[in-house]
Amino acid sequence: MALIVQKYGGTSVGTPERIRNVAARVARFVARGDRVVVVVSAMSGETNRLLALAREIQSQPDPRELDVVLSTGEQVTMGLLCMALQAAGVDARSYTGGQARILTDDAFNKARISSIDGVAIRRDLEAGRVVVVAGFQGVDAAGNITTLGRGGSDTTGVALAAALQADECQIYTDVDGVYTTDPRIVGEARKLDCITFEEMLEMASLGSKVLQIRSVEFAGKYKVKLRVLSSFEEAGEGTLITVEEGRNMEEPIISGIAFNRDEAKLTVLGVPDCPGIAYQILGAVADANIDVDMIIQNVGHDGATDFSFTVNRSEFDKTKAVLESVCEHIGAREIQGDNKVCKVSAVGVGMRSHPGVASQMFRALAEEGINIRMISTSEIKISVVLDEKYLELAVRALHRAFRLEAA
Amino acid sequence: MALIVQKYGGTSVGTPERIRNVAARVARFVARGDRVVVVVSAMSGETNRLLALAREIQSQPDPRELDVVLSTGEQVTMGLLCMALQAAGVDARSYTGGQARILTDDAFNKARISSIDGVAIRRDLEAGRVVVVAGFQGVDAAGNITTLGRGGSDTTGVALAAALQADECQIYTDVDGVYTTDPRIVGEARKLDCITFEEMLEMASLGSKVLQIRSVEFAGKYKVKLRVLSSFEEAGEGTLITVEEGRNMEEPIISGIAFNRDEAKLTVLGVPDCPGIAYQILGAVADANIDVDMIIQNVGHDGATDFSFTVNRSEFDKTKAVLESVCEHIGAREIQGDNKVCKVSAVGVGMRSHPGVASQMFRALAEEGINIRMISTSEIKISVVLDEKYLELAVRALHRAFRLEAA
Repeated sequence: MALIVQKYGGTSVGTPERIRNVAARVARFVARGDRVVVVVSAMSGETNRLLALAREIQSQPDPRELDVVLSTGEQVTMGLLCMALQAAGVDARSYTGGQARILTDDAFNKARISSIDGVAIRRDLEAGRVVVVAGFQGVDAAGNITTLGRGGSDTTGVALAAALQADECQIYTDVDGVYTTDPRIVGEARKLDCITFEEMLEMASLGSKVLQIRSVEFAGKYKVKLRVLSSFEEAGEGTLITVEEGRNMEEPIISGIAFNRDEAKLTVLGVPDCPGIAYQILGAVADANIDVDMIIQNVGHDGATDFSFTVNRSEFDKTKAVLESVCEHIGAREIQGDNKVCKVSAVGVGMRSHPGVASQMFRALAEEGINIRMISTSEIKISVVLDEKYLELAVRALHRAFRLEAA
Repeated sequence: MALIVQKYGGTSVGTPERIRNVAARVARFVARGDRVVVVVSAMSGETNRLLALAREIQSQPDPRELDVVLSTGEQVTMGLLCMALQAAGVDARSYTGGQARILTDDAFNKARISSIDGVAIRRDLEAGRVVVVAGFQGVDAAGNITTLGRGGSDTTGVALAAALQADECQIYTDVDGVYTTDPRIVGEARKLDCITFEEMLEMASLGSKVLQIRSVEFAGKYKVKLRVLSSFEEAGEGTLITVEEGRNMEEPIISGIAFNRDEAKLTVLGVPDCPGIAYQILGAVADANIDVDMIIQNVGHDGATDFSFTVNRSEFDKTKAVLESVCEHIGAREIQGDNKVCKVSAVGVGMRSHPGVASQMFRALAEEGINIRMISTSEIKISVVLDEKYLELAVRALHRAFRLEAA
């Protein structure tokens, strides 16, 4: 008998029939003696419908009132799922974020959970009930409804699992786990049985969007056993996301190849090599609300250096304009940019203890005649920026080079 | 400067454009210095959509979870209206039933309001904000979401007006007031400037469905000044519903002619004229969950009497079956029934002090050759049951006889 938190995304509860399927799955866990807390998203399309309605009224909807409107999506699902569970003979009770005492700060639209009082939920679980909680929402100290931002239902699931000291937090989605890379690009891509939190963070932020990053951080911090599974398949253990310690030493060095197509790179050439320059450049970019991804500065010579970074491709023109005004101010020589690039990364905790991973990666790319434009590394990841046209070729070459197709 | 509670129904907030119109109206009250609390229904069609979704999941939806689902309709409207008010430059804040501390009993789907703590609302009003409250909903003592049943938004409006000691409660709907009778039947039907609570109750229960009866009872009990207005017209004072005392002595004796087409009458002939017989007949009917309207028993003779009552036409067959089994048991002679009848009533507090209203009514009907099948009276109403085919003729004759077309 285990205490399990299950989270179902919007497509998993997108129709009455799918809601009944979720109820049937929950009923099976209950039948084998587990206690289950279910976290639900809004039915697919519902959040967008509500958002469009709000924007039709006010182009920039008031943040507090937007949360009032958006939070109804999950509230509808939780009620419907309880009905489906009861129709399946399972006693169930629903909780809004406020009823579950999920307290957050008062940053409407992007609130952060500060605490969860699990007393009422525990009482229901002990009475043999399934508890269904609306994901994505909470209340601030003054009782205002808040939402955690898009994808926040994952975070609700992990936070509840932590607060209730659940044995496992299962995230049901429309894929059956985390893969070594995108199966649409590499046919032999293999589902991973397990992956570490750190690898998952690198994979997620690099474009393998299975789990919301915040929920992974949260799970790592509170040591919640997290599992990604498909809600459309009966069998399958999905992918378990674990702390590194418990890992088999025989595991491969690299866990997966992540990539991101929507990149643009910008370089400021001939920057005076003196303190405060990086801040002057990036400060201006941040002030313009542009998110920067990779940042690279090599050693300078003759009192000058080159400074490069990547941004989302949609921000390319805006970023270039910002740089041009800064360029003059700091006395840089020239701005160069390229919005036809992509980023490919090899991720794996194994590389910490295995030197030579980088050279192995660069050789594989060289053998395909792919020119590397930028390189950046972290403890468990090596990223390269390439011409966009090489993306698929590079991902396939690296997947093969690190033998990721082999179990 | 007045404190006004305004309630807008589903059609008044049925589209983003109509929500903006409501905001513009509220803004005008604010501009002239009034403090305004707005109670909103779900956008038209939304409650039915949610109900259908629930029934698709569970044919008899769990009452608690149904309220969880249905209450989202009003929550969406309240958020959208606040956005529209802010877009119009009016500071506004929304409250769910729970946030407004509208406490109810725990009778899900048909809860009754036990108390309202207006502290937070008053604080917002004093800060110059418009307060928008979700109608139709509250919370029970345990924090469960409850709904007041269909039409409950009127009750929310009146209850808030009572709790806040508002100067007036305005119910905006798709008609511009209460009429002397249905204008579709009598072209000269006239909008009433005012009507007493008791008359309104008789008019409403007799088929002039402008206001929910419960809200009228509530308004009468707590002496809330209630006004019915159109949300689609700019001008117009609507109809004020008042306590009798303030009424002009010159007011006409009869305020309106109400009618109900969907009637059926049943008579138990030759009932033994002894104590407990009425209970034996009506007890069986009530046990079958059939609502009885008029009940008539005349003096008996030879130890027997006749017992008649009316029910909704849709219950006719069911009622007849119940009576047939009872008939044998109590030794009654025969059951007669007619499901092609209608009820027409003259309503007015003036008839208390003006004898002869009944005879005036019967003469008007006689002059048209209309045979009266049953008669029942209360302090402020005389109802007659007629063959259905006479309905329009009778309503027009009575409207004219009591000179209701004259202001």
